[in-house]
Amino acid sequence: MYSIVVENIYMLVIVTLISVLQNAFFALKVEKECRRVNTNPAAFERVSCANRNCMDSYPTFLAVMWCAGLCLSQAPASFAGVIYLVVRQKYFVGYMGQTSQSTPGYLFGKRILFFLFLMCIVGIFNYLLVRFCSSDYKEYVETITSAASALLLLP
Amino acid sequence: MYSIVVENIYMLVIVTLISVLQNAFFALKVEKECRRVNTNPAAFERVSCANRNCMDSYPTFLAVMWCAGLCLSQAPASFAGVIYLVVRQKYFVGYMGQTSQSTPGYLFGKRILFFLFLMCIVGIFNYLLVRFCSSDYKEYVETITSAASALLLLP
Amino acid sequence: MYSIVVENIYMLVIVTLISVLQNAFFALKVEKECRRVNTNPAAFERVSCANRNCMDSYPTFLAVMWCAGLCLSQAPASFAGVIYLVVRQKYFVGYMGQTSQSTPGYLFGKRILFFLFLMCIVGIFNYLLVRFCSSDYKEYVETITSAASALLLLP
Repeated sequence: MYSIVVENIYMLVIVTLISVLQNAFFALKVEKECRRVNTNPAAFERVSCANRNCMDSYPTFLAVMWCAGLCLSQAPASFAGVIYLVVRQKYFVGYMGQTSQSTPGYLFGKRILFFLFLMCIVGIFNYLLVRFCSSDYKEYVETITSAASALLLLP
Repeated sequence: MYSIVVENIYMLVIVTLISVLQNAFFALKVEKECRRVNTNPAAFERVSCANRNCMDSYPTFLAVMWCAGLCLSQAPASFAGVIYLVVRQKYFVGYMGQTSQSTPGYLFGKRILFFLFLMCIVGIFNYLLVRFCSSDYKEYVETITSAASALLLLP
Repeated sequence: MYSIVVENIYMLVIVTLISVLQNAFFALKVEKECRRVNTNPAAFERVSCANRNCMDSYPTFLAVMWCAGLCLSQAPASFAGVIYLVVRQKYFVGYMGQTSQSTPGYLFGKRILFFLFLMCIVGIFNYLLVRFCSSDYKEYVETITSAASALLLLP
């Protein structure tokens, strides 16, 4: 039991751990700015807002990534997860550096979340096909998904 | 391995996907109001607050729904999840439309979360009964739970 | 299938349920202060801020605890989870009671999250060892982890 479970989720766990490290990095930044809030309230406001926006979408990201990984295949899901973390890092750093007039918007990583969302739907759809029509396209779908995940690298 | 896992969670995955869609809808609303914050700061404040309240309870909801689905049975858990999403939609729309004097409170969907919570406890309790007394009431419990979940439809 | 799954996660589910109860307690406190925000805005501000800080780190905590429990062993992970909840309770109560000058910082429970994080890494590492070197240290690692989790009790 143990090995089979870990075999199917270990990549997802690794991406989750990286995201936790990133959360800790964000939290430390907020903590640091929180201590000198009196000298620079604008910077604290910005970093706190960036952190809150990142944290708002964190459960959504985790849920979609794990569902995609469990329903279809873990390699493309983890790959998309890593790219999402890179985008989030850029967003956070960009938010901190900018003046308040030109802050980036509330949303980020829409394309990656959409890709993971599609993966979930394809996985569920494939399961229903297997169950009711007993025709299994999982192999093809996995190959196509792995190839398609490379498209996320496009800027 | 793959089919067995997906068979036991596919309804939960579908509800999770719907909730992700709803989150995206909320985020788009916030994004839209964020762009015209200068013309209507009160509306931005309201939609942002509604979104934050919804996002605050989102991890709790996901955790309870998945635990209930895994420990007892996925059909009533997903059904309760769908009703929770409907209540959340009503809450969000109500929050946006109201003036600030009559906004709905901080909490919503208490009854549904309580029902899911009870499902978890019953599931754990049943597991402990199976383990230590080797008496399995799972069939009865599942029937009762499915019937009881219809009570959530009461206004 | 059902019994095997529940056997390996029931402690994690129990800790998750306790954390949900705690979230409900926090939310009720916020709701209560929200109703009398006009008479005591400072208290509402404090309780709302404490709640937000707790909720910000909640998905991270859940993700790390479940990964640690799935990858290595559920008993020490749940034990660390319970201690985290105690620390969080102390943090919340301390935040409410203090005046705004001496509020505790943004972060709490760093040591426990770090311990759970280490558990995940050890679990993944052990899995990779099993796979590529076919040498299984899981028994030793579990014993060491259980013993090490007692160290979290140190103040």
